[in-house]
Amino acid sequence: MLALQVDKKRLALREINKPDNSDEALVRVLLSGICNTDLEIARGYAGFNGTIGHEFVGVVEESTNADLIGRRVVGEINAGCGQCELCRRGDSRHCPSRTVLGIVARDGAHAEFLQLPEVNLLPVPETIADEHATFTEPLAAACGILERVSITKDDRVAVIGDGKLGLLCAQVVALTGAETLLIGKHDPKLRIAARRGIETSTPKYASKRVREFDVVVEASGSASGFDLALSLLRPKGTLVLKSTFHGATEIEAARIVVDEISIIGSRCGRFAPAIDLLKRNAIDVDSLISEEYPLARAVHAMKRARTKGVLKVLLRP
Amino acid sequence: MLALQVDKKRLALREINKPDNSDEALVRVLLSGICNTDLEIARGYAGFNGTIGHEFVGVVEESTNADLIGRRVVGEINAGCGQCELCRRGDSRHCPSRTVLGIVARDGAHAEFLQLPEVNLLPVPETIADEHATFTEPLAAACGILERVSITKDDRVAVIGDGKLGLLCAQVVALTGAETLLIGKHDPKLRIAARRGIETSTPKYASKRVREFDVVVEASGSASGFDLALSLLRPKGTLVLKSTFHGATEIEAARIVVDEISIIGSRCGRFAPAIDLLKRNAIDVDSLISEEYPLARAVHAMKRARTKGVLKVLLRP
Repeated sequence: MLALQVDKKRLALREINKPDNSDEALVRVLLSGICNTDLEIARGYAGFNGTIGHEFVGVVEESTNADLIGRRVVGEINAGCGQCELCRRGDSRHCPSRTVLGIVARDGAHAEFLQLPEVNLLPVPETIADEHATFTEPLAAACGILERVSITKDDRVAVIGDGKLGLLCAQVVALTGAETLLIGKHDPKLRIAARRGIETSTPKYASKRVREFDVVVEASGSASGFDLALSLLRPKGTLVLKSTFHGATEIEAARIVVDEISIIGSRCGRFAPAIDLLKRNAIDVDSLISEEYPLARAVHAMKRARTKGVLKVLLRP
Repeated sequence: MLALQVDKKRLALREINKPDNSDEALVRVLLSGICNTDLEIARGYAGFNGTIGHEFVGVVEESTNADLIGRRVVGEINAGCGQCELCRRGDSRHCPSRTVLGIVARDGAHAEFLQLPEVNLLPVPETIADEHATFTEPLAAACGILERVSITKDDRVAVIGDGKLGLLCAQVVALTGAETLLIGKHDPKLRIAARRGIETSTPKYASKRVREFDVVVEASGSASGFDLALSLLRPKGTLVLKSTFHGATEIEAARIVVDEISIIGSRCGRFAPAIDLLKRNAIDVDSLISEEYPLARAVHAMKRARTKGVLKVLLRP
């Protein structure tokens, strides 16, 4: 089968064997989405070698669970050991021995087939189009903010970063009824949020609103976003770190102590709330799709995904 | 009256006028304690000029509240504007216009007299000795951890730093019933905690306990303490930043996101729980007192407080 692989920081489309672990379900990929994490992995992040990609919708072809066969599914990307305390409590997202689809020790979704444990798979309601279903994983990540921080209609929230993640986060936050501001540098991207009734601003203009916000979500992945986030927060405010930007970031620890700021890391979220939002058509994901390519053109598609102004790029096997 | 002042990063004992703001209570200082923050301020932190010192016990000499006159008191150090939303909610600790005793725009406690709003003063029960009462403010700061983070007997907690603050934090945390480890480099200081039944360790030995702790309290004020804290935390663990160390600190933001760590800044705490602990003799503060000097020798006392191995230095006007 065809698969987009990373091998020692080099990207290549390869013909490889179909996966054949009989303990897991075999899923034929219908559509996959390129995430910024894929771009990072292709640059060597996490030292991953193998098939990349973790956003997908597919059809189960083989499974020990007969009910799953033929079903259209999405899949939670963390596969736990099933034995440790965290797995037994039902949260394998932090299992120390976990594998992660296309990220840690597990071949991913930019391929004709993938495998995942049956417990990871969730059927997709018929009314959700394939193109929308591929957003389940990043939308779940945005919803994950609400697993970590309580946000209500009485809160003022700023989201920094108008990329795919920032646009999803801003929409999820706005659904809570909180007064939401999306901060970004790209007019066409900001307009996607504005069409949903979300206030938008450039970083320069937003930087005047010092100490106005109860919660700031950092989704830009840049150190300047981190500094801006701290300056926008009221005392005792909460900074949600959503971007896995890399390398060391300098922080003013004294500011965090004196103003009693909380900094909350947030990575993956549960899929069920995201599927529910897609089913209710509560999130505009259509506007986030820039381009679609056949899997055979995946190397080119990755280049496009890296291009300024391009949002989600989809791959069809 | 005699007062220990900082003027453009220079420390001097001066004869100045007694404070005379008739809107506030006048307190004759019985005893004051030198805090590490005093040492930082003397080096220029916060750009403060004036009388330093914020840990004290004193007797009210003048007040519009007749009940207070003659009472032995301690005082909350943040004086809010009384008008803003935060002050009206009863938490002037984050009032943007607040003054802070001996730290921000308000003369402090290393003097014969000080002034504070009446609302800041709390009577000290007779059974608490002056020497112990001066620990109310730093002990309240240690108790402030529990205002910000829930700690129960089921938690494993590490406190980094065996200075005065670390020793108070470790004792406060241990009273919750949590399994508590104090990490420090100084045997005589660690022994103070060990005598209270608290497990102790050097940083080198503790560093092997990777991802074992639910909560880590950083009270060492050093960047290496910050790194050690992160490495000791389990996924979804909580790092409490207690030390206002200065300058920028480098952090691995990706670690915070991937492991969904919470970083919680904690500064001042309420005085009532601290007074209660002192009254119940639940905290060993005696062992934390190294030396006492008359206020007239305050400059020398500051030098002593800066000396390795010296814990609390008290000043008696």
